[in-house]
Formats: sequence, C-alpha cells, structure tokens
Amino acid sequence: MVRVGILGATGYTALELIKILIRHPEAEITVLTSRQDSAPHVAMVHPQLAGRLDVRMENTTASALAHRVDCIFSCLPHAASAEALVPILDGPVRIVDLSADFRLWNPQLYSTWYGESHPAPDRLASIPYGLPELFRSRIEDAQVVANPGCYPTSAILALHPLLQLDLIDPHDLIVDSKSGVSGAGRIPKLTTLYPECNESISAYNVGRHRHTPEIIQVLEHAAGRKVELIFTPHLVPMDRGILSTSYGRLKHALSEEQVLSAMREAYRNEPFVRVVDHLPATKDTWGTNFCDITARIVGNRVVVISCIDNLIKGASGAAVQNFNLMFGFPETTGL
Amino acid sequence: MVRVGILGATGYTALELIKILIRHPEAEITVLTSRQDSAPHVAMVHPQLAGRLDVRMENTTASALAHRVDCIFSCLPHAASAEALVPILDGPVRIVDLSADFRLWNPQLYSTWYGESHPAPDRLASIPYGLPELFRSRIEDAQVVANPGCYPTSAILALHPLLQLDLIDPHDLIVDSKSGVSGAGRIPKLTTLYPECNESISAYNVGRHRHTPEIIQVLEHAAGRKVELIFTPHLVPMDRGILSTSYGRLKHALSEEQVLSAMREAYRNEPFVRVVDHLPATKDTWGTNFCDITARIVGNRVVVISCIDNLIKGASGAAVQNFNLMFGFPETTGL
Amino acid sequence: MVRVGILGATGYTALELIKILIRHPEAEITVLTSRQDSAPHVAMVHPQLAGRLDVRMENTTASALAHRVDCIFSCLPHAASAEALVPILDGPVRIVDLSADFRLWNPQLYSTWYGESHPAPDRLASIPYGLPELFRSRIEDAQVVANPGCYPTSAILALHPLLQLDLIDPHDLIVDSKSGVSGAGRIPKLTTLYPECNESISAYNVGRHRHTPEIIQVLEHAAGRKVELIFTPHLVPMDRGILSTSYGRLKHALSEEQVLSAMREAYRNEPFVRVVDHLPATKDTWGTNFCDITARIVGNRVVVISCIDNLIKGASGAAVQNFNLMFGFPETTGL
Amino acid sequence: MVRVGILGATGYTALELIKILIRHPEAEITVLTSRQDSAPHVAMVHPQLAGRLDVRMENTTASALAHRVDCIFSCLPHAASAEALVPILDGPVRIVDLSADFRLWNPQLYSTWYGESHPAPDRLASIPYGLPELFRSRIEDAQVVANPGCYPTSAILALHPLLQLDLIDPHDLIVDSKSGVSGAGRIPKLTTLYPECNESISAYNVGRHRHTPEIIQVLEHAAGRKVELIFTPHLVPMDRGILSTSYGRLKHALSEEQVLSAMREAYRNEPFVRVVDHLPATKDTWGTNFCDITARIVGNRVVVISCIDNLIKGASGAAVQNFNLMFGFPETTGL
Repeated sequence: MVRVGILGATGYTALELIKILIRHPEAEITVLTSRQDSAPHVAMVHPQLAGRLDVRMENTTASALAHRVDCIFSCLPHAASAEALVPILDGPVRIVDLSADFRLWNPQLYSTWYGESHPAPDRLASIPYGLPELFRSRIEDAQVVANPGCYPTSAILALHPLLQLDLIDPHDLIVDSKSGVSGAGRIPKLTTLYPECNESISAYNVGRHRHTPEIIQVLEHAAGRKVELIFTPHLVPMDRGILSTSYGRLKHALSEEQVLSAMREAYRNEPFVRVVDHLPATKDTWGTNFCDITARIVGNRVVVISCIDNLIKGASGAAVQNFNLMFGFPETTGL
Repeated sequence: MVRVGILGATGYTALELIKILIRHPEAEITVLTSRQDSAPHVAMVHPQLAGRLDVRMENTTASALAHRVDCIFSCLPHAASAEALVPILDGPVRIVDLSADFRLWNPQLYSTWYGESHPAPDRLASIPYGLPELFRSRIEDAQVVANPGCYPTSAILALHPLLQLDLIDPHDLIVDSKSGVSGAGRIPKLTTLYPECNESISAYNVGRHRHTPEIIQVLEHAAGRKVELIFTPHLVPMDRGILSTSYGRLKHALSEEQVLSAMREAYRNEPFVRVVDHLPATKDTWGTNFCDITARIVGNRVVVISCIDNLIKGASGAAVQNFNLMFGFPETTGL
Repeated sequence: MVRVGILGATGYTALELIKILIRHPEAEITVLTSRQDSAPHVAMVHPQLAGRLDVRMENTTASALAHRVDCIFSCLPHAASAEALVPILDGPVRIVDLSADFRLWNPQLYSTWYGESHPAPDRLASIPYGLPELFRSRIEDAQVVANPGCYPTSAILALHPLLQLDLIDPHDLIVDSKSGVSGAGRIPKLTTLYPECNESISAYNVGRHRHTPEIIQVLEHAAGRKVELIFTPHLVPMDRGILSTSYGRLKHALSEEQVLSAMREAYRNEPFVRVVDHLPATKDTWGTNFCDITARIVGNRVVVISCIDNLIKGASGAAVQNFNLMFGFPETTGL
Repeated sequence: MVRVGILGATGYTALELIKILIRHPEAEITVLTSRQDSAPHVAMVHPQLAGRLDVRMENTTASALAHRVDCIFSCLPHAASAEALVPILDGPVRIVDLSADFRLWNPQLYSTWYGESHPAPDRLASIPYGLPELFRSRIEDAQVVANPGCYPTSAILALHPLLQLDLIDPHDLIVDSKSGVSGAGRIPKLTTLYPECNESISAYNVGRHRHTPEIIQVLEHAAGRKVELIFTPHLVPMDRGILSTSYGRLKHALSEEQVLSAMREAYRNEPFVRVVDHLPATKDTWGTNFCDITARIVGNRVVVISCIDNLIKGASGAAVQNFNLMFGFPETTGL
C-alpha cells in the first residue's frame, strides 16, 4: 500500500480525491492537512465521508509529514502550494501538485500571470505536465508531476490532435469554455453565492484567465510552433462539468468523418478519452475520469466539443491517473 | 409622490423593493443607504438596475435623512434595524420595518429568541404586525409597521382561518416549510455557496428557528388561546419561494370541500390570497404578491399547502402593500 | 383599449406575453386560442394567472376571431403560424408573429431551412423584421411584423454596430450562444426533461440551427455585404436567459474604450439596450426587456458579450415593443 | 461471476444499477432488455456508458432469457414487472424486483392502491421485503426479493427503531418527504419538464401516494400493532436525493441524546446507516448507499431527519445490497 498525504484537504478537489483514494486498492490515506488549528475530523469538514475515513486534519507542513507518506497530493492554492512543496522537492516523497505552481515551464510567464516570482524557477523545466495522453512516459519516471488545470485539459485534448496533424491553423484558435461552479472553490464569495449564480450564466476574465498561457504552452509544444488562442471562460449554474467549444480554421477541406477518424486514431489507446459521434453533454462524464470529444465541420472551420468532470478528469481523477503511472499501477486503477 | 428612503439597500429584499417601487406610480426613491463608505451607484451593487434608477448609496443614518423622505423602509438586519429606527419612531416619517425587530409584542420573547434586550420595549405593543389580511385597519393608521417574516406569512395565512373557526386543535400544529436560498441573505457564507446547497435539500434550525415565536404569537391572537406548534424550515435549491405544508388535527370530521369553502370565505375579499383547488407550486407565485393555498383531508387531519414568493409576499411586496394602506393608495397599487 | 388575441396561448412565450399585457394600460386580452377541444380556463393551463385573467381558451381560427380583436399575436410554432395567419394578412387586424414564418425575406431560404415551401412567398419581402433597434420606422407602419428569434436578437444587437461601422471583418464571425431551457418550448421531450438537462451543459444543432440564416440575413442587410458566420447554440440548466459570446476580427487596432464608445453611440437613444462596462450576467436582464452588452479586446479580436431574457427581449417583450410602435404608444409602455 | 440480466434497462434506476454492477467484482451483465425493437447499444441509450459496457438492448422476455442469467433485476414499471416475472417465479433464476409489485403482502391492498388485481396473489406473503436492516436473514435465503420503494426506505429507517422500542405513539405519525426529480422516471411528462419543476417546489399526491401502504405495512410489522401515518411527498428541483422529515409523539419525555443513542444502538452493525449528530443534507449521501439519520426533540415530539440518494439506497444500491446477501457476498461489495 502506498501511504498518501493530502495537503489542503478541505476543498472540493480534495474531497473528490479522498473519495477516489478510499476505493483505490493500492493507496492508503495517512495524513490530511488543513490550515485550521482545530484539527477537525475529516467527517466534520466533509459530512459525505462519515464512517468512510477515520482521519483528523492536521495543521502541519509537508516537510514535517514527509516521513509518514510515500506520496503527497497538494490541493493547496497556487503560491501556497509551491511554498509547501519546495522544501521536499528533492525528497524521496513523490508529489502530484494539483495547483498551478509547476505547470508553466517558463518562470517569467509564471510571474506575469500569477503576479509573483516563482520560488523554484530552476525546477520548472524538468517537471512534467501531468496530462498522460501527451506526456505519459515522462510522468512514469517523475518524482514531481504538475497536474493540469481543468480548462486546459478540456481544451488541449480537443485541439492537440488537429494541431499535431497540422490540420488547423495554429494562429487562429478560439476556446469558448463553460464551467460548473465547483471550479471556483469552496471559499465563500459573493460571485459564487447560490442566488448570484443560479439561473444565470456569465463570462468572466475574458482574455485574461490564468489558464490561457497553460493551454498555449502545451499546444505549442504539440504543434512545434507558435500558437495564438483566445480563451473565454463562463460560469454555468451547475456543480460540476466543463464543456469547451473550440474553433479552428481548417488548412484543407476535410469531411466530418475524416476529422473524427483522425481523432479516434489519435486517442485509440487512451483509456479515458472517448471520441463520440453524438454531441456530448457534461453529464455524460459526470463523476468519471472520461473526456468525451466530438467534432463538426462548419464552413471552413472545425468546431470541437469536449467535456469533462472538472473535479475528476479536470483535477483529482487525473491526479490519481498520474499517481498510478508514477507507482507502476495499471493506469485505470481506482478510476 | 411619496418620497421614499430604503435603509440597507444592498441585499435581495431591497433589490425587490426597489424594483417594485420603480414601477409604483405614487412613490419616488430618494435615498438608499448602505454601510459602505464608497457610496457606490445603485447599479454597481445591483446591475439589474442599470439605467432604471439613478441614485448613489449613502452611508448615513435614518435620523440624518429623515427630512428628505416621507417614508422609510428598513431592510437592515435585526438589531441594526431597531438601532437605526428608534431615534425616529416619534415621526413624522412613516416606517415599514422589514426586520424582525418590531414583530414580537413581548420584549421578553424578543430577548429570549434574539439574544439581546430590545432598545424600545415600550413601543412593541402598539406597532401593528403588517399582515393586512389580519390587521388591515391598524396598519392604515400606523406610523410604524412591522413587516412579517417570510415563513410566518406562509404559515399564518394557512392556519389562521382554521383556528379562528375553531376547526382544528390549537395544541397540535406542525408547519414543515421549504425555502429558496435567497431567504438566507446576500452575505457570502459556506452554507449558501452554490456547490454546497445546489443538488441538495436539508433541514436547519429544527425547533429553534426565530420565526417560531412570531408564528405562534399571531396564531394565538387569532385563536384567542394558547397554540402549540412545531416549525421545521428546510433549504431548497432554488432562488425563491416558500412552500409550507401545515398539519392540523380536525376537531370534527369535515370534507375537503367544507374546508376549502371555509378558506375561500375567509379570504373572499383578499386581493392577494388565492384559495385554489389544485396543489400549488411555488412557481405559481414567482415574482408576485400572491399567496396560493389549498387543503387536503388525510385521516383526521387537514394538510394545508401554502406558497409565496419569499421576496415579494414574504418581504418587499408585503411592505409595499402596507405602504399602500398607510398612505391611502389602493392596496394593489404597483403590485 | 386595443383588443388583443393570442394564438397558441399554452406555451411559455404566450404566458410571458399575457403577463406583460395584463399590466399594459392600453391592451385588453379578449381571445386566447389553443388546439385543445376542452376549452380550459387560462388559469388551468397557467396557474400563475389565477385571479388575474378570466378568459377561456378557444379552439378557433384566426379568421373566425378576427372581428373580435384589433391585434393578433401568434405564438404558434412555425408552419402552423403561417397557415393560421395567411388568410388574414390583408387586414384590418394587425399582426405580430412570434414564429419564424415571416422572418426570412427569401422564400428559397425558408424552404431550405424549414423543409417546406412558404405559403405566402410574395409577402415576405414587405414584412419588416421586428427588431426596433434596426427597423423602427418600418415597424410603425406595418400591418404585420415578424418578431425576431431569441438567439438572433442577442447576436444581431452584439454585432450590428461593429459591422455597420466597418470595424470587423464580416467574413469571420463566430457566435457562441448559451440558452436556458424555456427556449425549447413546453412540449414534453426527453432532451428537456429535468434530470436530462439539469447539472449538464451541451451544444446542439452545431452549424445547422435555424436561427443561423436569420442572423446572417439581418447582419448582411446592416453591413451591406456578404457575411460569414458560425453559430453554435448550447443548452444551459436554467429556466431563462441567453448569453451570446461573439467573436469578430478587428480590421484596425482599437482600444476597448473605442469599441465601447462606438457601441454606446450606436445605442444612445435605445431604451432597451444597455452598453455596460462590466461583464453582464443573464440574471441582470431576467424578467426585463433589456439587452446588456459589453466588449473586450483580445489580441486582434473583439469579444462581444450580450445577454437577454429569451422570453422577454427574445420574444414577448419585443413583441409588445413592436405592438407599442404599431399602435403609436410610447415604446416602453408596459415593459 | 454471477451472470446478471436487467429488465427495463432504459431508465434512471437501471443506469445506476448498471454503473454499480460494472464495478462489482462478482457480477457480469449479460442481458439488458428494452421494449424498443431497434435493439440499441446501451451507450446509445445511456451515453455515460460509452466504452464501459458493450451490450445491446434486447426486446425479449424474462422467460426467454432465463437460461442466460443467474439473477434478474427488474426495473420495469409496476404491473409490467409482475407480468414479466410471474412465469419465472419458480425458476432457478434469482430475482430482485425493483418495482412495487411484490412489496405489499396483502393482495387486497395491492388492488386498492394499484388499481388491478395481482397476478400472483399467493406468492406475496412469502417474498421478503428487501430492506436488509429489517429482513436480512429472510433475504439471504430468498429466491425473489421485493426491493423497497425510495420514500419507504427513508421513512422506515427513520421511524422503525422508535416504534420497536415503543418510544413513540404509533397512531400519530407524519412523514413529510422531499424528493429529487429522477424519482419520477425518464418518460417525458409536462410535470417533470425542466422549466416546470426548476425553481419550484410542490407537494403532490397528498395523502394518496402509493408508497403510503408500503410504509405502514412495514412499520406495523415492526411495531407489532396498528400504525396511523400521513405521508406527504414533495418534488424538489434537484436530480437526486430524498429527505424525509418524520414527526412522532413521544410516549415519555426523552432527551435528544437518549433518542440518538437508541438509534445508534439500533443501527450499530448496519454498514449503510449513519446516525449523525448534525442535520444531514441529501448531498451527504449523493451517489452512495448510505442513509443518514438524526433526531431532534421539539416539545413532546421527536423530529427525525433521514436522507438517502433515491437512486442508490432508494433503488439500485439497495438492490445490489440484496444481491450480495442472496449470493453470499460481503454485503458492501461494489457499494
């Protein structure tokens, strides 16, 4: 059994991670941390877990708990996560960081988008981006993996095959994404209060959401050339789910079936990507680690529809998928 | 035109009040207050009002603004409302207080349930409870009216005729109420965060919700004798609406039609109570000042279903209904 | 008082229309039709209207009821609406058709998208498209007005000023729209069953929604040249509201403030278009006849966000706005 | 591996059952039936299952498929289920019937509430009611088990210990239940259309819901005496979950802690009943086979709050719990 610790265990991502790991035959949760001094039982914070996990939260550091675990998942917010993890980056403990802190390979880009200089800029280039569909072999060998953002997962899986096959113009990409409210976290805020966002949809951070450079970085890596992309996130009145509608300009005329075949081929060995003929709904992926994708041709553009559960394939499911790869378990274990 | 000021204008109740008063042919909103120093334009706080009302919030007191208005609506929370209003209770400004501060006639009861002594205990007995269906004539003459709570409106209108006609046992009453989330206010809290209360229903404050003594007080007044009542509120994943399911034990066997006839008779002249044959849904009253009521006989009990829009008949619509009575306008004006 | 009849009065659009007309000081609802033989009272079909309107539905034809009304609103589905209205197109009754039947000026286009030949092809060119912001003077004089579709209203108001001022490339337009479920009508269908569409978002009819030619037709008229546009509708778990995110390529570099100024100028005299600085949510327009619009510059593109209540500005509110213009009432009467 | 067939596999209950059985280490789904002639692949009917289960629906009878399975789960509606199952009641195939057809032990009661005479009245008394918490040993030996209704599960688990211990008056019980919309099935109906039930709560079938005799029957069995009970179901705008608020009159004064202790003791060995101190929300049980219960004393009454996921503990989870008992697997396998 791999002994697992979770940093920042009070939020929605951590809850989903715990629920997956409870069922995981090779993992045992030994430590949960929270910055509350009261050390509540996990069931006080997450009533869903009553009777399923008997652990108290601890207000402790990654360094202090490192000897009690084989793997740490960090569900801390960005900046706090890097601060907690930097002291153990050379450790024996393996790390899946669910924050954004190790996703951007260029420390300058990190400073620009996150407003502070990175505490371990030299490490960024060597930590793989934890999207197994693109970086599986590097993940297997990694001590630390940067788990992808939720929006980027849906966008990259949608556009990557088309760019890699040079079917669409990399300078003319639009990703219009729609997310459930759990993506905004569990800290009470006016914008995510029930009566504010129920019965309403809105765009936010248009053109300046922090997931933008992450999407571009990985797609540029895939395309081997510069990518220009507009990313527009929206908040949808539902708990979970991300649907991304991505628009690319075809370089040559292609039929719908040709595009779908190319996608099917690209993902033929992927256990968690389903290329489907119908237009998928986020509900089709609810509670699962699947990403459902389809494509339509409209004029000279391809419209790719991709959807995931933002808390599973967009966060904790992907984290366990990475964990499985890192520890040599079958990739689908527990998922 | 009656010049109107609204204290505490940033919440959901105030927003609905403003929307009603904007359409009201006899009212003009001249002052809005908020405890923010920034004095935002009302449309910054309530984007729905852009282009419809050109007023800035002011961080001021009821006393300081009294000369600029003929009527004050207080949407402040309890305690803060009494504190603001006590200095101007001797008029000439007329007042509709939407808080709980002047609803209980017994200052002792107020201390027990609200945890602090009342700042104007001598005034409580003389301020009418603003439910026009029961206290219309007293409201017409009042300088100050205590606007009813949302749950009490739905419960009292359901049970009052049956108690007054002595059809049910006053010692054996149960009110099981279900409310939308707007009733919990606009201050960010974990319990009303979207992902906490969406896709979920829960009971809260079972047996100790502050609306309990208010319901009992008014029903005792109606019945002319002691009432025993259990009140159980629930939080439902919707913006608005209260449905109360009230259970009373029949003193004598009655048919459904007899009970419905008695209710129809009781409310025959009421413009905002609709006694209906079907089982009403809160949506039937959405955005309106109506209370829809029906009854069913089950065994030796009557089950009364009543529903309202908690922000309209349960708060701001009722406040305008009271305003109309106080200023001599037709009771339905603007509603 | 203008005597008003509504054809097809059982759906959501008709309900909103009735609610607006009940408050309208110059209109009186005299006839409601439904294809049910049982002639139910309107309150049986729409419980919200109990005690507010005392009319029975009639299973009758437009021709048979023409002498009892001065104006007919048709809420019938396409094809059925044209069939009902063609016999009375030569007046004297004035008509606002909320179906799609008279919106496309080219009968060929109608056949292509709606799958049947138009029953009155010669009339199409002379019936104005009922968007007052573009066709006010023609509407004032019209006997028949084709009320716009909900998606087209949000898209056209977003893009029209930018095209008219030649600020964006007319050959590279994308409109990504998100709609509440009421837009799908009141006929029970699996796709709009609560557990199918709650907690889920999906795209539908990608590249082949019938509102596409309508948007293109009106924008081409505005731009005076050919328009190429991709339109992608999505179904969002909420009752009402449409948010359209429209992407246009700037012909010359412009600042956000320049674009917003151009839009403000374009709509300066429009009572129902609010150009706002913030990113609007559909809730800001809930229950109103407003269209809220803003714009952001991202790279060399402008992203326009526009939102409406699909049942009001997207249907019945616009219909009453047209009615007001046709009968010479102030345009905002009753809205 | 136990070979499993599911009758009526197109609905929500069947979908949840399939999802549980796919993860179940001892079960293999070999047959799915549907009354559609087109024999669709299961992923056409339930897109969530794409790539997870490769079975086509068959339009066949229980008799015809009996040799291909060891166990049949029937998700057919009442009447249809009995009709399908009666021919194989003496079979070797073991049966979990999720319909209401074998729940009532008295055929007369069945006729009264379901409007038709039972096709196998002689069998009713010998088929155990599949609530393991009350009838575990009989279930283990049964060839056929009648899986409980969703509302009854929540109500019986709430009230049974209090009745069995003679703590409350069996003649004065009220169960006020609130259910998500999936409980109403997957057949399109006006009442469960999204815009009808979203943003609304309503009571339905007050005093005459078919689960009433089922609750009473089992509680009478537990109490060993006649029970009088009022049951009021409500429809809540959420996909899943039932919360029941049950009111009982205490025979003797008891503290909250005494009641909670009695409940904890009653369920101390039950893997799926959690007696909790806090007021549970349906979300705490979302997607799980748990029933969360707590109690409050209000005056001389006990108010019991119980909640379940109506599709899991209220249907398919309970069915698998029964399956585990019948086939000798650990009771929690796959749950």
